[in-house]
Amino acid sequence: MNLTLGIDIGGTKVAGAVVSRDGRILDRARAMTPGSSTDPAVVEDTIIEVVHQLQDRLPDGCCIREVGIGAAGWVSSDRSTVLFAPHLSWREEPLRDRLQSRLDLPLTVDNDANTAAWAEWRFGAARGEEDLVMITLGTGIGGAIVRQGRIERGRWGLAGEFGHMQVVPDGQRCECGNRGCWEQYASGNALVREAQSLITSGSPTAIDLAARITGEGGTLSGPLVTEAARAGDPTAIELLTEMGHWLGVGLANLAAALDPGLFVIGGGVSTAGELLLEPAREMFRRRLPGRGYRPMASIIAAELGNDAGMIGAALLALDDPGAN
Amino acid sequence: MNLTLGIDIGGTKVAGAVVSRDGRILDRARAMTPGSSTDPAVVEDTIIEVVHQLQDRLPDGCCIREVGIGAAGWVSSDRSTVLFAPHLSWREEPLRDRLQSRLDLPLTVDNDANTAAWAEWRFGAARGEEDLVMITLGTGIGGAIVRQGRIERGRWGLAGEFGHMQVVPDGQRCECGNRGCWEQYASGNALVREAQSLITSGSPTAIDLAARITGEGGTLSGPLVTEAARAGDPTAIELLTEMGHWLGVGLANLAAALDPGLFVIGGGVSTAGELLLEPAREMFRRRLPGRGYRPMASIIAAELGNDAGMIGAALLALDDPGAN
Repeated sequence: MNLTLGIDIGGTKVAGAVVSRDGRILDRARAMTPGSSTDPAVVEDTIIEVVHQLQDRLPDGCCIREVGIGAAGWVSSDRSTVLFAPHLSWREEPLRDRLQSRLDLPLTVDNDANTAAWAEWRFGAARGEEDLVMITLGTGIGGAIVRQGRIERGRWGLAGEFGHMQVVPDGQRCECGNRGCWEQYASGNALVREAQSLITSGSPTAIDLAARITGEGGTLSGPLVTEAARAGDPTAIELLTEMGHWLGVGLANLAAALDPGLFVIGGGVSTAGELLLEPAREMFRRRLPGRGYRPMASIIAAELGNDAGMIGAALLALDDPGAN
Repeated sequence: MNLTLGIDIGGTKVAGAVVSRDGRILDRARAMTPGSSTDPAVVEDTIIEVVHQLQDRLPDGCCIREVGIGAAGWVSSDRSTVLFAPHLSWREEPLRDRLQSRLDLPLTVDNDANTAAWAEWRFGAARGEEDLVMITLGTGIGGAIVRQGRIERGRWGLAGEFGHMQVVPDGQRCECGNRGCWEQYASGNALVREAQSLITSGSPTAIDLAARITGEGGTLSGPLVTEAARAGDPTAIELLTEMGHWLGVGLANLAAALDPGLFVIGGGVSTAGELLLEPAREMFRRRLPGRGYRPMASIIAAELGNDAGMIGAALLALDDPGAN
């Protein structure tokens, strides 16, 4: 039985899965990237480790034929090189060739939002749809466009970097080097920054949130804010609402430009669910140009969670549907 | 010989042309829309007048087989209805059926930026290119996406409305009903507003510009500012530079989202040429996310001028390449 490996490279870990043609995960493994996860050599070793681990556990008669990798970076259109990564220190990193020579397996590298979108389109929230725009809310914002069964990659493979569209002139500084990028207002980083700023200000509205952090060993994180919101903390709910509004503003911008039928919202922060999506829809309805005279895109949550990246990476290595 | 009519509907006039299959204009006619040009019935009568005028002048043996119309509005994906037009009072206007019943000719309606983009791609600045993003700078900003020989229309035909992406939170009010839309900072309207504001302020920098207006019977217009800039007026040059910078910001946003190889800048304001395009390129280079680690799209002027709309409308009626 021929199988495919899907690998998802995150900021602090490498996750891998053995994936069948119909998108099922048959086995999985993960490893933390020790020390500085932004060192390409360390990440490379960790990927090799995960691949070998999964290969060693394969049942008799099964064989890995391809490896697909999803990385949080801007990948060249030939799917070989990570050109730039705002949140990693990779610059023109020839990931495919380096790994291929060590693994002796065909390998493709793709943007991690592309892989997530592909999985959601094939087997998740967007199955049966003609086209979609995927937004992944993690450290930053990832994006992908699927149109008529293809990933739209643009001229050089870099389409879908919606997170770095400027929404505020001279706004918050972004890791990409610019200011006012959308992801500075609607992402895990943005949520943590705003929560931190509220706590630091000493506002009484943040007392409960501050107490939670103390309980968690002093570490403020996106999941902690989301959990507080779920538990009914009004300040945490307000922070998610504000972020949802920024999400809606950006989605209205994308609707103006691309007019998709469906937005799928994934990534870690999307686990906040309706606490985030309802304010996003509300702002989308208020900001969509031509509202009232046009159909309105649906804004729904992704279904495959953290597995989307691995499943999509494997399927894209098989399907190769997005070559420009 | 079978020929096609291309019609371009502007704010104050209807222009029509007899167009051959290879994009040549064989005859042309135009009529002002009397009174309120935003009245759909008046525009309809004017279109009929232009079509009849061109038909009456056809040489023996020539025959009009289709009519293509480009309109400054948001056209449904079946290319029949103008759903919404920020700068006209059309709302869900069934333009195709109304005209077809009076003309007895097959007819398609398209967005005027789509028609311009199609003409530039077939026979203008973008011929031979695989894909392009077209920006038309007129009263507002029109936009179109051509990918692999197709116009990308989006789910409901409304893709490409880049002018209504918000670039300034709570910014200038826009005719679309929102605030801070890109076209409020980079369009003919924006240029006139800024020039007017400078003159009204009584700034000594605007004395020469104010004198020009008096010379022109008191009417400030985009072309007047452009002409002053061409004649070396530093204030007019500054106004165009500022607008060019905003153009560059928006193009960098579109490059982040769509990663096209080529931007073609057309529309009336683009006659300012390098006075506008050079500052746009400068800002684009400064704002493109990942600059230095990616190829950079070209930003060039359209070639077909005011004829692009008519030529493209005729060719799109023939080709019908963009059905969703």
